[in-house]
Amino acid sequence: MTTNMPNDLYAVADFCLIPIGTGESSVAEYIAECHRVLEKSGLTFKDTCLSGYATNHEGPRSEVSKAIHDCHAAVHAKGAPRVATDIRIGTRVDRDILAGDGNDHKVRRVEEILARDRATAS
Amino acid sequence: MTTNMPNDLYAVADFCLIPIGTGESSVAEYIAECHRVLEKSGLTFKDTCLSGYATNHEGPRSEVSKAIHDCHAAVHAKGAPRVATDIRIGTRVDRDILAGDGNDHKVRRVEEILARDRATAS
Amino acid sequence: MTTNMPNDLYAVADFCLIPIGTGESSVAEYIAECHRVLEKSGLTFKDTCLSGYATNHEGPRSEVSKAIHDCHAAVHAKGAPRVATDIRIGTRVDRDILAGDGNDHKVRRVEEILARDRATAS
Amino acid sequence: MTTNMPNDLYAVADFCLIPIGTGESSVAEYIAECHRVLEKSGLTFKDTCLSGYATNHEGPRSEVSKAIHDCHAAVHAKGAPRVATDIRIGTRVDRDILAGDGNDHKVRRVEEILARDRATAS
Repeated sequence: MTTNMPNDLYAVADFCLIPIGTGESSVAEYIAECHRVLEKSGLTFKDTCLSGYATNHEGPRSEVSKAIHDCHAAVHAKGAPRVATDIRIGTRVDRDILAGDGNDHKVRRVEEILARDRATAS
Repeated sequence: MTTNMPNDLYAVADFCLIPIGTGESSVAEYIAECHRVLEKSGLTFKDTCLSGYATNHEGPRSEVSKAIHDCHAAVHAKGAPRVATDIRIGTRVDRDILAGDGNDHKVRRVEEILARDRATAS
Repeated sequence: MTTNMPNDLYAVADFCLIPIGTGESSVAEYIAECHRVLEKSGLTFKDTCLSGYATNHEGPRSEVSKAIHDCHAAVHAKGAPRVATDIRIGTRVDRDILAGDGNDHKVRRVEEILARDRATAS
Repeated sequence: MTTNMPNDLYAVADFCLIPIGTGESSVAEYIAECHRVLEKSGLTFKDTCLSGYATNHEGPRSEVSKAIHDCHAAVHAKGAPRVATDIRIGTRVDRDILAGDGNDHKVRRVEEILARDRATAS
Protein backbone atom coordinates (compact mmCIF):
# COMPACT_ATOMS: atom_id res chain seq x y z
CA MET A 1 0.00 0.00 0.00
CA THR A 2 2.77 2.38 0.88
CA THR A 3 5.42 0.79 -1.30
CA ASN A 4 6.52 3.94 -3.06
CA MET A 5 6.31 6.11 0.00
CA PRO A 6 9.43 7.22 1.79
CA ASN A 7 9.77 5.73 5.23
CA ASP A 8 9.84 9.18 6.68
CA LEU A 9 7.85 11.85 4.82
CA TYR A 10 9.09 15.43 5.03
CA ALA A 11 6.74 17.17 7.44
CA VAL A 12 5.93 20.83 7.98
CA ALA A 13 4.43 21.35 11.41
CA ASP A 14 3.07 23.94 13.78
CA PHE A 15 2.43 23.08 17.38
CA CYS A 16 0.93 24.65 20.47
CA LEU A 17 1.88 23.08 23.80
CA ILE A 18 -0.09 23.67 27.00
CA PRO A 19 1.13 22.65 30.45
CA ILE A 20 -1.77 21.51 32.68
CA GLY A 21 -1.98 21.62 36.45
CA THR A 22 0.90 24.03 37.05
CA GLY A 23 -1.06 26.46 39.20
CA GLU A 24 0.19 29.45 37.25
CA SER A 25 -1.57 31.08 34.36
CA SER A 26 1.64 32.08 32.61
CA VAL A 27 2.97 29.56 30.10
CA ALA A 28 5.89 31.62 28.79
CA GLU A 29 8.58 29.81 30.82
CA TYR A 30 7.41 26.47 29.44
CA ILE A 31 7.30 27.71 25.86
CA ALA A 32 10.82 29.14 26.26
CA GLU A 33 11.92 25.69 27.44
CA CYS A 34 10.47 24.20 24.25
CA HIS A 35 12.53 26.66 22.24
CA ARG A 36 15.67 25.46 23.98
CA VAL A 37 14.71 21.89 23.08
CA LEU A 38 14.05 22.81 19.44
CA GLU A 39 17.37 24.63 19.21
CA LYS A 40 19.16 21.45 20.30
CA SER A 41 17.12 19.34 17.86
CA GLY A 42 18.91 20.76 14.84
CA LEU A 43 15.62 21.10 12.98
CA THR A 44 14.71 24.23 11.07
CA PHE A 45 12.27 26.15 13.18
CA LYS A 46 10.93 29.65 13.13
CA ASP A 47 11.37 31.66 16.25
CA THR A 48 10.89 34.85 14.28
CA CYS A 49 7.51 33.52 13.33
CA LEU A 50 6.74 32.28 16.79
CA SER A 51 3.16 33.33 17.10
CA GLY A 52 1.14 33.80 20.19
CA TYR A 53 0.06 30.21 19.92
CA ALA A 54 2.33 28.24 17.74
CA THR A 55 5.85 27.27 16.93
CA ASN A 56 6.66 26.10 13.41
CA HIS A 57 9.23 23.48 12.68
CA GLU A 58 9.88 21.08 9.86
CA GLY A 59 12.01 18.10 8.83
CA PRO A 60 11.69 14.33 8.49
CA ARG A 61 8.45 13.35 10.22
CA SER A 62 10.13 11.14 12.84
CA GLU A 63 12.44 13.98 13.93
CA VAL A 64 9.66 16.56 13.97
CA SER A 65 7.63 14.23 16.15
CA LYS A 66 10.61 13.36 18.40
CA ALA A 67 11.26 17.06 19.01
CA ILE A 68 7.70 17.55 20.23
CA HIS A 69 8.07 14.51 22.48
CA ASP A 70 11.23 16.02 23.94
CA CYS A 71 9.35 19.27 24.57
CA HIS A 72 6.77 17.28 26.55
CA ALA A 73 9.52 15.58 28.55
CA ALA A 74 11.20 18.94 29.28
CA VAL A 75 7.95 20.58 30.35
CA HIS A 76 7.16 17.63 32.63
CA ALA A 77 10.68 17.96 34.05
CA LYS A 78 9.95 21.64 34.75
CA GLY A 79 7.02 20.56 36.92
CA ALA A 80 3.92 20.20 34.74
CA PRO A 81 2.08 17.00 35.72
CA ARG A 82 0.27 16.92 32.42
CA VAL A 83 0.95 18.34 28.97
CA ALA A 84 -1.44 18.68 26.02
CA THR A 85 -0.21 19.64 22.58
CA ASP A 86 -2.10 20.47 19.44
CA ILE A 87 -0.05 19.71 16.33
CA ARG A 88 -0.84 20.60 12.73
CA ILE A 89 1.32 18.54 10.44
CA GLY A 90 1.37 18.46 6.66
CA THR A 91 3.03 16.30 4.02
CA ARG A 92 2.91 16.45 0.24
CA VAL A 93 4.03 14.24 -2.62
CA ASP A 94 3.21 16.50 -5.56
CA ARG A 95 6.50 18.38 -5.38
CA ASP A 96 9.73 18.33 -3.44
CA ILE A 97 10.05 20.63 -0.47
CA LEU A 98 13.45 22.31 -0.24
CA ALA A 99 14.72 21.29 3.19
CA GLY A 100 13.86 24.03 5.66
CA ASP A 101 11.77 25.97 3.17
CA GLY A 102 8.36 24.35 3.69
CA ASN A 103 6.90 26.99 5.97
CA ASP A 104 8.60 29.90 4.22
CA HIS A 105 7.39 28.77 0.83
CA LYS A 106 3.79 28.76 2.00
CA VAL A 107 4.05 32.25 3.45
CA ARG A 108 5.76 33.61 0.32
CA ARG A 109 3.03 32.26 -1.97
CA VAL A 110 0.29 34.04 -0.02
CA GLU A 111 2.32 37.25 0.20
CA GLU A 112 2.91 37.23 -3.56
CA ILE A 113 -0.82 37.03 -4.20
CA LEU A 114 -1.57 39.86 -1.77
CA ALA A 115 1.22 41.99 -3.29
CA ARG A 116 -0.39 41.48 -6.70
CA ASP A 117 -3.67 42.81 -5.22
CA ARG A 118 -1.94 45.96 -4.05
CA ALA A 119 -0.16 46.44 -7.40
CA THR A 120 -3.49 46.13 -9.24
CA ALA A 121 -5.22 48.53 -6.84
CA SER A 122 -2.66 51.29 -7.21
CA MET B 1 17.12 18.01 31.66
CA THR B 2 14.96 15.00 30.86
CA THR B 3 16.98 12.49 32.85
CA ASN B 4 14.08 10.92 34.69
CA MET B 5 11.76 10.97 31.74
CA PRO B 6 11.01 7.78 29.84
CA ASN B 7 12.38 7.77 26.34
CA ASP B 8 8.91 7.27 25.01
CA LEU B 9 6.08 8.79 27.06
CA TYR B 10 2.69 7.08 26.95
CA ALA B 11 0.54 9.26 24.71
CA VAL B 12 -3.21 9.59 24.35
CA ALA B 13 -4.09 11.13 21.01
CA ASP B 14 -6.94 12.22 18.82
CA PHE B 15 -6.33 13.12 15.19
CA CYS B 16 -8.23 14.51 12.26
CA LEU B 17 -6.70 13.92 8.83
CA ILE B 18 -7.70 15.91 5.76
CA PRO B 19 -6.68 14.99 2.20
CA ILE B 20 -6.04 18.12 0.08
CA GLY B 21 -6.34 18.44 -3.66
CA THR B 22 -8.38 15.30 -4.32
CA GLY B 23 -11.17 16.97 -6.28
CA GLU B 24 -13.87 15.24 -4.27
CA SER B 25 -15.59 16.65 -1.23
CA SER B 26 -16.05 13.26 0.43
CA VAL B 27 -13.25 12.18 2.74
CA ALA B 28 -14.84 8.95 4.01
CA GLU B 29 -12.77 6.61 1.79
CA TYR B 30 -9.57 8.19 3.08
CA ILE B 31 -10.64 7.98 6.72
CA ALA B 32 -11.59 4.32 6.21
CA GLU B 33 -8.09 3.75 4.83
CA CYS B 34 -6.67 5.26 8.03
CA HIS B 35 -8.73 2.82 10.05
CA ARG B 36 -7.20 -0.07 8.12
CA VAL B 37 -3.74 1.34 8.93
CA LEU B 38 -4.58 1.71 12.62
CA GLU B 39 -5.92 -1.84 12.77
CA LYS B 40 -2.57 -3.11 11.47
CA SER B 41 -0.66 -0.92 13.92
CA GLY B 42 -1.71 -3.01 16.91
CA LEU B 43 -2.41 0.15 18.91
CA THR B 44 -5.55 0.55 20.98
CA PHE B 45 -7.83 2.80 19.03
CA LYS B 46 -11.48 3.63 19.28
CA ASP B 47 -13.57 3.03 16.24
CA THR B 48 -16.69 2.99 18.39
CA CYS B 49 -15.76 6.47 19.44
CA LEU B 50 -14.83 7.56 15.96
CA SER B 51 -16.38 10.98 15.87
CA GLY B 52 -17.28 13.01 12.91
CA TYR B 53 -13.86 14.55 13.05
CA ALA B 54 -11.49 12.49 15.05
CA THR B 55 -9.99 9.11 15.66
CA ASN B 56 -8.56 8.34 19.09
CA HIS B 57 -5.59 6.14 19.62
CA GLU B 58 -3.00 5.71 22.32
CA GLY B 59 0.27 3.98 23.12
CA PRO B 60 3.98 4.80 23.33
CA ARG B 61 4.45 8.21 21.71
CA SER B 62 6.73 6.95 18.94
CA GLU B 63 4.18 4.32 17.85
CA VAL B 64 1.25 6.73 18.04
CA SER B 65 3.18 9.13 15.86
CA LYS B 66 4.34 6.41 13.45
CA ALA B 67 0.74 5.25 12.97
CA ILE B 68 -0.29 8.77 11.92
CA HIS B 69 2.67 8.91 9.53
CA ASP B 70 1.54 5.63 7.99
CA CYS B 71 -1.96 7.06 7.57
CA HIS B 72 -0.43 9.98 5.64
CA ALA B 73 1.53 7.56 3.45
CA ALA B 74 -1.59 5.46 2.79
CA VAL B 75 -3.71 8.51 1.93
CA HIS B 76 -0.99 9.78 -0.43
CA ALA B 77 -0.91 6.30 -2.00
CA LYS B 78 -4.68 6.55 -2.54
CA GLY B 79 -4.09 9.70 -4.59
CA ALA B 80 -4.08 12.72 -2.29
CA PRO B 81 -1.20 15.01 -3.32
CA ARG B 82 -1.21 16.69 0.05
CA VAL B 83 -2.37 15.70 3.52
CA ALA B 84 -2.90 17.89 6.59
CA THR B 85 -3.52 16.41 10.01
CA ASP B 86 -4.45 18.04 13.26
CA ILE B 87 -3.28 15.99 16.24
CA ARG B 88 -4.11 16.51 19.91
CA ILE B 89 -1.67 14.57 22.02
CA GLY B 90 -1.43 14.38 25.78
CA THR B 91 1.06 12.93 28.25
CA ARG B 92 1.06 12.88 32.04
CA VAL B 93 3.54 11.96 34.75
CA ASP B 94 1.32 12.34 37.81
CA ARG B 95 -0.09 8.84 37.57
CA ASP B 96 0.28 5.71 35.48
CA ILE B 97 -2.08 5.19 32.59
CA LEU B 98 -3.29 1.61 32.26
CA ALA B 99 -2.27 0.63 28.73
CA GLY B 100 -5.20 1.20 26.41
CA ASP B 101 -7.30 2.90 29.06
CA GLY B 102 -6.20 6.52 28.65
CA ASN B 103 -9.11 7.68 26.54
CA ASP B 104 -11.68 5.53 28.31
CA HIS B 105 -10.56 6.76 31.71
CA LYS B 106 -11.10 10.37 30.71
CA VAL B 107 -14.58 9.68 29.38
CA ARG B 108 -15.56 7.70 32.49
CA ARG B 109 -14.47 10.48 34.83
CA VAL B 110 -16.71 13.04 33.09
CA GLU B 111 -19.62 10.61 32.92
CA GLU B 112 -19.35 9.87 36.63
CA ILE B 113 -19.62 13.57 37.44
CA LEU B 114 -22.63 14.03 35.17
CA ALA B 115 -24.29 10.91 36.64
CA ARG B 116 -23.84 12.44 40.12
CA ASP B 117 -25.64 15.56 38.82
CA ARG B 118 -28.59 13.48 37.70
CA ALA B 119 -28.68 11.51 40.97
CA THR B 120 -28.75 14.77 42.95
CA ALA B 121 -31.43 16.25 40.74
CA SER B 122 -33.83 13.31 41.06
CA MET C 1 -18.25 38.16 -2.52
CA THR C 2 -20.48 36.17 -0.22
CA THR C 3 -23.78 37.21 -1.76
CA ASN C 4 -25.20 33.73 -2.12
CA MET C 5 -23.89 32.50 1.18
CA PRO C 6 -26.20 32.10 4.14
CA ASN C 7 -25.51 34.54 6.92
CA ASP C 8 -24.91 31.65 9.24
CA LEU C 9 -23.52 28.48 7.70
CA TYR C 10 -24.45 25.15 9.32
CA ALA C 11 -21.36 24.07 11.21
CA VAL C 12 -20.23 20.69 12.48
CA ALA C 13 -17.67 21.10 15.23
CA ASP C 14 -15.49 19.23 17.67
CA PHE C 15 -13.75 21.07 20.47
CA CYS C 16 -11.27 20.39 23.21
CA LEU C 17 -11.16 22.88 26.06
CA ILE C 18 -8.22 23.13 28.47
CA PRO C 19 -8.30 25.16 31.69
CA ILE C 20 -4.89 26.74 32.41
CA GLY C 21 -3.46 27.70 35.78
CA THR C 22 -5.85 25.70 37.93
CA GLY C 23 -3.21 23.90 39.97
CA GLU C 24 -4.87 20.55 39.46
CA SER C 25 -4.06 18.06 36.75
CA SER C 26 -7.63 16.76 36.47
CA VAL C 27 -9.81 18.53 33.94
CA ALA C 28 -12.91 16.32 34.31
CA GLU C 29 -14.88 18.77 36.50
CA TYR C 30 -14.38 21.51 33.92
CA ILE C 31 -15.39 19.29 31.01
CA ALA C 32 -18.51 18.21 32.92
CA GLU C 33 -19.33 21.91 33.37
CA CYS C 34 -19.07 22.34 29.59
CA HIS C 35 -21.55 19.52 29.14
CA ARG C 36 -24.00 21.30 31.39
CA VAL C 37 -23.57 24.43 29.25
CA LEU C 38 -24.09 22.47 26.03
CA GLU C 39 -27.23 20.85 27.41
CA LYS C 40 -28.70 24.29 28.06
CA SER C 41 -27.68 25.51 24.60
CA GLY C 42 -30.26 23.34 22.89
CA LEU C 43 -27.74 22.33 20.24
CA THR C 44 -27.32 18.73 19.13
CA PHE C 45 -24.20 17.43 20.79
CA LYS C 46 -22.79 14.01 21.29
CA ASP C 47 -22.08 12.94 24.80
CA THR C 48 -22.18 9.30 23.69
CA CYS C 49 -19.35 10.16 21.38
CA LEU C 50 -17.54 12.25 23.92
CA SER C 51 -14.02 11.17 23.30
CA GLY C 52 -11.10 11.46 25.58
CA TYR C 53 -10.36 14.79 24.01
CA ALA C 54 -13.31 16.19 22.24
CA THR C 55 -16.96 17.07 22.38
CA ASN C 56 -18.90 17.23 19.13
CA HIS C 57 -21.68 19.66 18.55
CA GLU C 58 -23.33 21.18 15.52
CA GLY C 59 -25.82 23.83 14.45
CA PRO C 60 -25.84 27.33 12.95
CA ARG C 61 -22.28 28.65 13.18
CA SER C 62 -23.11 31.57 15.46
CA GLU C 63 -24.78 29.26 18.01
CA VAL C 64 -22.01 26.67 17.87
CA SER C 65 -19.51 29.43 18.50
CA LYS C 66 -21.61 31.05 21.23
CA ALA C 67 -21.87 27.71 23.07
CA ILE C 68 -18.08 27.43 23.15
CA HIS C 69 -17.85 31.01 24.43
CA ASP C 70 -20.28 30.12 27.22
CA CYS C 71 -18.15 27.10 28.11
CA HIS C 72 -15.15 29.46 28.47
CA ALA C 73 -17.20 31.79 30.69
CA ALA C 74 -18.39 28.86 32.84
CA VAL C 75 -14.88 27.44 33.21
CA HIS C 76 -13.53 30.88 34.18
CA ALA C 77 -16.39 31.15 36.70
CA LYS C 78 -15.28 27.79 38.14
CA GLY C 79 -11.87 29.30 38.83
CA ALA C 80 -9.66 28.86 35.76
CA PRO C 81 -7.77 32.12 35.13
CA ARG C 82 -7.12 31.16 31.55
CA VAL C 83 -8.81 28.84 29.07
CA ALA C 84 -7.52 27.55 25.73
CA THR C 85 -9.74 25.72 23.30
CA ASP C 86 -8.94 23.94 20.09
CA ILE C 87 -11.93 23.87 17.73
CA ARG C 88 -12.30 21.96 14.48
CA ILE C 89 -15.19 23.37 12.53
CA GLY C 90 -16.47 22.37 9.13
CA THR C 91 -19.00 23.76 6.68
CA ARG C 92 -20.11 22.53 3.27
CA VAL C 93 -22.20 23.87 0.42
CA ASP C 94 -22.29 20.81 -1.84
CA ARG C 95 -25.23 19.24 -0.08
CA ASP C 96 -27.65 19.98 2.73
CA ILE C 97 -26.88 18.64 6.16
CA LEU C 98 -29.92 17.27 7.97
CA ALA C 99 -30.07 19.30 11.18
CA GLY C 100 -28.31 17.35 13.90
CA ASP C 101 -27.05 14.66 11.54
CA GLY C 102 -23.74 16.18 10.44
CA ASN C 103 -21.49 14.24 12.77
CA ASP C 104 -23.52 11.04 12.56
CA HIS C 105 -23.53 11.10 8.79
CA LYS C 106 -19.75 11.27 8.66
CA VAL C 107 -19.36 8.36 11.06
CA ARG C 108 -21.91 6.22 9.16
CA ARG C 109 -20.16 6.75 5.83
CA VAL C 110 -16.85 5.45 7.21
CA GLU C 111 -18.53 2.55 8.98
CA GLU C 112 -20.32 1.51 5.77
CA ILE C 113 -17.01 1.35 3.93
CA LEU C 114 -15.37 -0.71 6.68
CA ALA C 115 -18.41 -3.04 6.82
CA ARG C 116 -18.01 -3.61 3.07
CA ASP C 117 -14.37 -4.59 3.73
CA ARG C 118 -15.46 -7.20 6.23
CA ALA C 119 -18.21 -8.54 3.94
CA THR C 120 -15.68 -8.93 1.11
CA ALA C 121 -13.15 -10.62 3.40
CA SER C 122 -15.56 -13.28 4.70
CA MET D 1 -23.18 30.70 36.65
CA THR D 2 -21.55 33.23 34.37
CA THR D 3 -22.97 36.29 36.10
CA ASN D 4 -19.73 38.22 36.35
CA MET D 5 -18.50 37.23 32.94
CA PRO D 6 -18.54 39.69 30.07
CA ASN D 7 -20.99 38.77 27.38
CA ASP D 8 -18.17 38.68 24.92
CA LEU D 9 -14.75 37.69 26.26
CA TYR D 10 -11.67 39.12 24.56
CA ALA D 11 -10.26 36.29 22.48
CA VAL D 12 -6.83 35.68 21.04
CA ALA D 13 -7.02 33.22 18.19
CA ASP D 14 -4.98 31.41 15.58
CA PHE D 15 -6.70 29.55 12.78
CA CYS D 16 -5.79 27.28 9.91
CA LEU D 17 -8.38 26.95 7.16
CA ILE D 18 -8.32 24.11 4.63
CA PRO D 19 -10.50 24.03 1.50
CA ILE D 20 -11.63 20.46 0.67
CA GLY D 21 -12.54 19.07 -2.71
CA THR D 22 -11.00 21.79 -4.84
CA GLY D 23 -8.97 19.47 -7.04
CA GLU D 24 -5.84 21.56 -6.59
CA SER D 25 -3.14 21.00 -4.03
CA SER D 26 -2.33 24.70 -3.66
CA VAL D 27 -4.25 26.52 -0.97
CA ALA D 28 -2.50 29.90 -1.26
CA GLU D 29 -5.28 31.60 -3.26
CA TYR D 30 -7.81 30.63 -0.60
CA ILE D 31 -5.62 31.83 2.26
CA ALA D 32 -5.07 35.13 0.45
CA GLU D 33 -8.86 35.45 0.20
CA CYS D 34 -9.08 34.99 3.97
CA HIS D 35 -6.60 37.82 4.40
CA ARG D 36 -8.80 40.09 2.34
CA VAL D 37 -11.74 39.14 4.59
CA LEU D 38 -9.73 39.81 7.75
CA GLU D 39 -8.58 43.17 6.45
CA LYS D 40 -12.21 44.20 6.00
CA SER D 41 -13.14 42.88 9.46
CA GLY D 42 -11.24 45.66 11.21
CA LEU D 43 -9.80 43.18 13.71
CA THR D 44 -6.16 43.22 14.64
CA PHE D 45 -4.53 40.38 12.79
CA LYS D 46 -0.98 39.48 12.07
CA ASP D 47 -0.02 39.08 8.48
CA THR D 48 3.61 39.63 9.38
CA CYS D 49 3.30 36.64 11.62
CA LEU D 50 1.31 34.67 9.11
CA SER D 51 2.89 31.30 9.53
CA GLY D 52 2.91 28.44 7.13
CA TYR D 53 -0.19 27.17 8.82
CA ALA D 54 -1.89 29.83 10.79
CA THR D 55 -3.26 33.31 10.86
CA ASN D 56 -3.54 35.11 14.19
CA HIS D 57 -6.29 37.51 15.00
CA GLU D 58 -7.88 38.82 18.15
CA GLY D 59 -10.79 40.87 19.46
CA PRO D 60 -14.17 40.34 21.08
CA ARG D 61 -15.00 36.64 20.74
CA SER D 62 -18.12 37.15 18.62
CA GLU D 63 -16.18 39.23 16.07
CA VAL D 64 -13.23 36.83 15.97
CA SER D 65 -15.66 34.02 15.32
CA LYS D 66 -17.67 35.99 12.76
CA ALA D 67 -14.48 36.77 10.82
CA ILE D 68 -13.68 33.06 10.55
CA HIS D 69 -17.24 32.39 9.40
CA ASP D 70 -16.84 35.03 6.70
CA CYS D 71 -13.60 33.37 5.59
CA HIS D 72 -15.53 30.09 5.18
CA ALA D 73 -18.23 31.88 3.16
CA ALA D 74 -15.59 33.55 0.96
CA VAL D 75 -13.72 30.29 0.36
CA HIS D 76 -16.98 28.51 -0.52
CA ALA D 77 -17.76 31.40 -2.90
CA LYS D 78 -14.34 30.83 -4.53
CA GLY D 79 -15.43 27.26 -5.31
CA ALA D 80 -14.54 25.02 -2.37
CA PRO D 81 -17.48 22.67 -1.69
CA ARG D 82 -16.27 22.04 1.83
CA VAL D 83 -14.10 23.92 4.29
CA ALA D 84 -12.49 22.69 7.50
CA THR D 85 -10.86 25.04 9.97
CA ASP D 86 -8.84 24.37 13.05
CA ILE D 87 -9.08 27.25 15.53
CA ARG D 88 -7.09 27.76 18.72
CA ILE D 89 -8.79 30.33 20.86
CA GLY D 90 -7.83 31.60 24.27
CA THR D 91 -9.43 33.82 26.90
CA ARG D 92 -8.20 34.97 30.29
CA VAL D 93 -9.70 36.73 33.27
CA ASP D 94 -6.57 37.12 35.40
CA ARG D 95 -5.47 40.34 33.72
CA ASP D 96 -6.67 42.74 31.07
CA ILE D 97 -5.40 42.30 27.57
CA LEU D 98 -4.52 45.55 25.84
CA ALA D 99 -6.71 45.54 22.73
CA GLY D 100 -4.68 44.18 19.83
CA ASP D 101 -1.74 43.19 22.01
CA GLY D 102 -2.75 39.67 23.04
CA ASN D 103 -0.64 37.77 20.54
CA ASP D 104 2.27 40.21 20.68
CA HIS D 105 2.39 40.09 24.45
CA LYS D 106 2.73 36.32 24.43
CA VAL D 107 5.55 36.42 21.90
CA ARG D 108 7.40 39.17 23.80
CA ARG D 109 7.27 37.23 27.07
CA VAL D 110 8.93 34.19 25.51
CA GLU D 111 11.49 36.32 23.72
CA GLU D 112 12.42 38.11 26.93
CA ILE D 113 13.11 34.81 28.64
CA LEU D 114 15.24 33.57 25.76
CA ALA D 115 17.13 36.89 25.65
CA ARG D 116 17.92 36.44 29.36
CA ASP D 117 19.36 33.00 28.50
CA ARG D 118 21.68 34.53 25.94
CA ALA D 119 22.71 37.35 28.30
CA THR D 120 23.58 34.80 30.99
CA ALA D 121 25.49 32.60 28.55
CA SER D 122 27.72 35.35 27.21
